[in-house]
Amino acid sequence: MGSSMFSHILKAGYTGMVYNRTKEKAGEVIRLGAEWTEKPAILAAQCDIIFTIVGYPEDVRELYFGEEGLINSAGSGSILVDMTTSSPGLAKEIYTYAMTKGIHTLDAPVSGGDTGAINASLSIMTGGNKEVFETILPLFKLMGDKITYQGVEGSGQNTKMCNQIAIAGTMIGVCESLLYGYQSGLDMKTMLKAISGGAAACWTLDNLAPRILKQDYDPGFYVEHFIKDMSIALEEARKMNIVLPGLALVQQLYISLVASGHGKKGTQALMLALKKISDTNG
Amino acid sequence: MGSSMFSHILKAGYTGMVYNRTKEKAGEVIRLGAEWTEKPAILAAQCDIIFTIVGYPEDVRELYFGEEGLINSAGSGSILVDMTTSSPGLAKEIYTYAMTKGIHTLDAPVSGGDTGAINASLSIMTGGNKEVFETILPLFKLMGDKITYQGVEGSGQNTKMCNQIAIAGTMIGVCESLLYGYQSGLDMKTMLKAISGGAAACWTLDNLAPRILKQDYDPGFYVEHFIKDMSIALEEARKMNIVLPGLALVQQLYISLVASGHGKKGTQALMLALKKISDTNG
Repeated sequence: MGSSMFSHILKAGYTGMVYNRTKEKAGEVIRLGAEWTEKPAILAAQCDIIFTIVGYPEDVRELYFGEEGLINSAGSGSILVDMTTSSPGLAKEIYTYAMTKGIHTLDAPVSGGDTGAINASLSIMTGGNKEVFETILPLFKLMGDKITYQGVEGSGQNTKMCNQIAIAGTMIGVCESLLYGYQSGLDMKTMLKAISGGAAACWTLDNLAPRILKQDYDPGFYVEHFIKDMSIALEEARKMNIVLPGLALVQQLYISLVASGHGKKGTQALMLALKKISDTNG
Repeated sequence: MGSSMFSHILKAGYTGMVYNRTKEKAGEVIRLGAEWTEKPAILAAQCDIIFTIVGYPEDVRELYFGEEGLINSAGSGSILVDMTTSSPGLAKEIYTYAMTKGIHTLDAPVSGGDTGAINASLSIMTGGNKEVFETILPLFKLMGDKITYQGVEGSGQNTKMCNQIAIAGTMIGVCESLLYGYQSGLDMKTMLKAISGGAAACWTLDNLAPRILKQDYDPGFYVEHFIKDMSIALEEARKMNIVLPGLALVQQLYISLVASGHGKKGTQALMLALKKISDTNG
């Protein structure tokens, strides 16, 4: 996703540098003129604005806080924007520590997946200082088309968590509905047509139910990444003393998918977990 | 709902009779020309087409199978249409027993609630014989605008169950998302704006989340009726040997709402159950 997102910025005429653990993945942006660098620290020392999008909160922590990390390497006045879906608590830590060095940070996770990154149609949910957000806004607009400022540091990540929590619910609702419908012998297309215009209507029903009916479990969004997001939400919820039993249940079912070797499938593969516990091929 | 639905038929120029346990509730249709009767059996003996919409499957069973029930009282060739959300298994029993008397039946539960009944904009999901469905279609069109034929007897009820199962998922997803968002200090309107256009989009988010934010728990659809629907779905699922852990969890939370005296609130009151177990007023 990072490659597609950065390519829009380069095509708009900006110059920049790139680092990635696997150089081949930077091939496209290097062709578009980005300067390759061997270390994040070198990049941080030379760039005014740095975007990061990595895998897990641990990766974000290492990238930002390591001895050769971004905060210790970037110049005063520079802006670091983390677009990874990561921990709201970590986003606050990064903001606070960076401030001590005169460095600004934003947490700006995205939704919309590979397709959104390629088409520059991502949703970008941003937390941090509002003036800093406005400085970066022209660049966000090159990557996405639904860009919101959510408030103080961590708010971008918390908004993304709200998004993922809602999706967990719609996903289990849709998959259980399909399992019931199939097993009870309904004509599935006729059933979906009847329910998709009313109170059961949701993006998942419109976009993923037809793929499930074709037994197409290719990833738009990986099972294992969704598990990471749910872990972050459940950990934050625990710290806030709030109980999310639906999310916890859905995460357990997704963990069972990884146990069955389906971690690299798309999130609609939740259907496979329900089929397995029901021992049906439906 | 029955009163609104029948009133559309009477306004279109049809004549008919009405029975209800509480006569006052039939006031509107009596004013519109429906003839009052003291017993369903009298009505069944005199009408060619009979619509029923009552509370629970037990009520449907009594109404159809009792000694003075509809099937024993209706004439051969008449058509009985049950629009209650009821058990698919019971719909099949009714169909089979009615056939032995030369009586046709349809199961045709609706969605769209009071508003849909008043505005003649209900979804009507129909199971039974297709020719019989086509005979009744002109009358269905007076009550709803999304009318589907789903297949054999019981298919209408099974489709309604698919609808309710999907709603249970979207509801817990949305309520947990709101609880997390509120507790993490987000501006809720800004958060909702960010997530409602993407993969988390659903009817519940658009229509019920704004009401929850206003702490408006007035019923569109009653908690206790939703519990009934979920019981039917879980019982049918058990008979089919399929496992619906999400639905079972959501039903338990709704049962806790009844325990707290919230059975007559709207289904969005699931939020109150989550707040209670989190001991928060958020």
